[in-house]
Amino acid sequence: MEHRLRRMRAALADAGIGSFFCTDLSNVKWLTGFSGVFDDEPAHTLFVSADEAAMHTDSRYAQAACNAAEGTPWQVDASGGSHAAWVAQRSAAAHAEGPLAIEDSMALAAYRALGSALAQQGGAAAAAPRETGDFVRRLRAVKDSAEIDAMRAAQAITDAAFEHIAGFMRVGMTEREVQLELEETMRRMGAEDLAFSSIVASGANGAAPHSIPGAKRLEEGDMVVLDFGARKHGYCSDMTRAVCMGHASDEARRVFSAVRAANEAVEAMLRPGVTGAQAHELAEQVLAREGYAGKMGHGLGHGVGIDIHELPNLSPRNQAPLEPGNVVTVEPGVYLGGVLGCRLEDFGVITEDGFEVFTKSTHELVII
Amino acid sequence: MEHRLRRMRAALADAGIGSFFCTDLSNVKWLTGFSGVFDDEPAHTLFVSADEAAMHTDSRYAQAACNAAEGTPWQVDASGGSHAAWVAQRSAAAHAEGPLAIEDSMALAAYRALGSALAQQGGAAAAAPRETGDFVRRLRAVKDSAEIDAMRAAQAITDAAFEHIAGFMRVGMTEREVQLELEETMRRMGAEDLAFSSIVASGANGAAPHSIPGAKRLEEGDMVVLDFGARKHGYCSDMTRAVCMGHASDEARRVFSAVRAANEAVEAMLRPGVTGAQAHELAEQVLAREGYAGKMGHGLGHGVGIDIHELPNLSPRNQAPLEPGNVVTVEPGVYLGGVLGCRLEDFGVITEDGFEVFTKSTHELVII
Repeated sequence: MEHRLRRMRAALADAGIGSFFCTDLSNVKWLTGFSGVFDDEPAHTLFVSADEAAMHTDSRYAQAACNAAEGTPWQVDASGGSHAAWVAQRSAAAHAEGPLAIEDSMALAAYRALGSALAQQGGAAAAAPRETGDFVRRLRAVKDSAEIDAMRAAQAITDAAFEHIAGFMRVGMTEREVQLELEETMRRMGAEDLAFSSIVASGANGAAPHSIPGAKRLEEGDMVVLDFGARKHGYCSDMTRAVCMGHASDEARRVFSAVRAANEAVEAMLRPGVTGAQAHELAEQVLAREGYAGKMGHGLGHGVGIDIHELPNLSPRNQAPLEPGNVVTVEPGVYLGGVLGCRLEDFGVITEDGFEVFTKSTHELVII
Repeated sequence: MEHRLRRMRAALADAGIGSFFCTDLSNVKWLTGFSGVFDDEPAHTLFVSADEAAMHTDSRYAQAACNAAEGTPWQVDASGGSHAAWVAQRSAAAHAEGPLAIEDSMALAAYRALGSALAQQGGAAAAAPRETGDFVRRLRAVKDSAEIDAMRAAQAITDAAFEHIAGFMRVGMTEREVQLELEETMRRMGAEDLAFSSIVASGANGAAPHSIPGAKRLEEGDMVVLDFGARKHGYCSDMTRAVCMGHASDEARRVFSAVRAANEAVEAMLRPGVTGAQAHELAEQVLAREGYAGKMGHGLGHGVGIDIHELPNLSPRNQAPLEPGNVVTVEPGVYLGGVLGCRLEDFGVITEDGFEVFTKSTHELVII
């Protein structure tokens, strides 16, 4: 993972930053490339400067971190003490090259502890650190081949799980039963974990984008939204399909057809230079043309990687051109309150001249 | 949940705080008592003063939150805008009674946004808010009967899952296979979710307290540490048992016997007035008497509730007396590096005159 560290150091130099205190655990994972080492405790932080690339962890993770660091540029320090004292000491040495930068996702309590530790160092080190948002997340938005392979593998599990669940679902089952089977299937097929808690939303529940699967039973004629993903090699997949139980009403068919048209129009136009806003606008236009203006109500898509929501967004506010290596979802939807919801979501990578879709499941309406 | 709001307001008055901005999602859940409303997004915050008890959420959760708030003292506001602007406006009105307090677990970025919003209000409202740590968590450390019932229910699932898994485990299975079966069992038995990612650590892996279940197969003679818990009605359970595959070595028996003695000595002495430090020291003394001085290396126990790790801790640093309603784990362990690990963990509630253990699984050494 030396190329990630090189990109990080180039970005620090560009921004006039002397050293960087990395506290976001997903950023820690990305920068080090260590896998299977961490759980979700805030036990791990990084310090990066032109000369140093060091991880501070605690004794519980020391052995696993040292194993993972072997042959990499990373030093592991499990000598104990607070993260704040550890980084303050290092930043004092690096300060000649520019200020210390921190991530504004850090907790206020950790920020206060850092302030005290820097004040104890005195001199230039006692200056307030520079607060950054999304500094490493912007680097993470461009994926390398190992990351793309991991997400292809995660999606292969997700596609296979969809095939299984389409054969499993029956009228009369509860949403929760379907969710349990779907999630077990992904784990049994090799997912390390879920990418997120799955959505199984039937009938009118499908019209609420954050519906929690429950005791409602699948009924004849229901359109059922299935939104789910796996985690493999530390990376997420994300996919949505809407299926119909027994038969599809005329309205369900019209909605599905509109959503599919929006999905396919966007997937055909994605390439480097297109902005997230343009992709979103195209989807809105297709949906409006099909008679569903203003029925989406959410952004068209988002980046995917170590986190399920990463940069870049395909949304009205993202005026930045997409770049090769961006991995994004394309998930137009139509929600008819009290009646049904429909969403068709693939994800894939922006290539040199287009968009490679990882998702292999059909775009045809599946009737179960 | 009006009694929780009453306790909160009394604590605010004691501390001279006029109003409170609650951002920690577990604290939001506890204060409102709303269940099945939220996911893990930071979409929900509370404002509490002597006169107001309001939740700010977004349109995705508005309907569910309004339903949950019906008949409670809580107002739901899903009118949009930022949390910072919303709370700044409210705190300006409440400022006469004392300063605004915030939680130092909030992200630095959210703190900066709040600062800007308060400055826009001007006057007394523009003063820096008071930063608190663990303010609501300390209230949460004393559970009410609904919370205790929820944790009994979560533990009933966990005990039943242990019985199942003890009948399922065989020499030759991988740790990961056992983990998947264990976790599926808890979900199938009605757990809403896991309390945490389960530990299945066999042989020498058991000596690493944070071992991640993997491809290692269970071998004849292995001691296997199973640490797992369910979530029910929003509350966690937490339990550990160490079992032996085929037979137990003399060393495994000695270790198990020492750990059991430490567990039972502590469970017999827990009552109001005993400190967390005293409980921890007793466990260390029993382990030392049995020949395992200094082989635990972690705190004896912790509070459990909405979060898997709550207050109070049974650890050397907690000099505060336990109170009726505290729910804690008792989990002495012995770790022999490169050989085996053993831990015996129950959890239960401090009563008026003792300790009621929720965990019903046997303290005998189980040989599979």
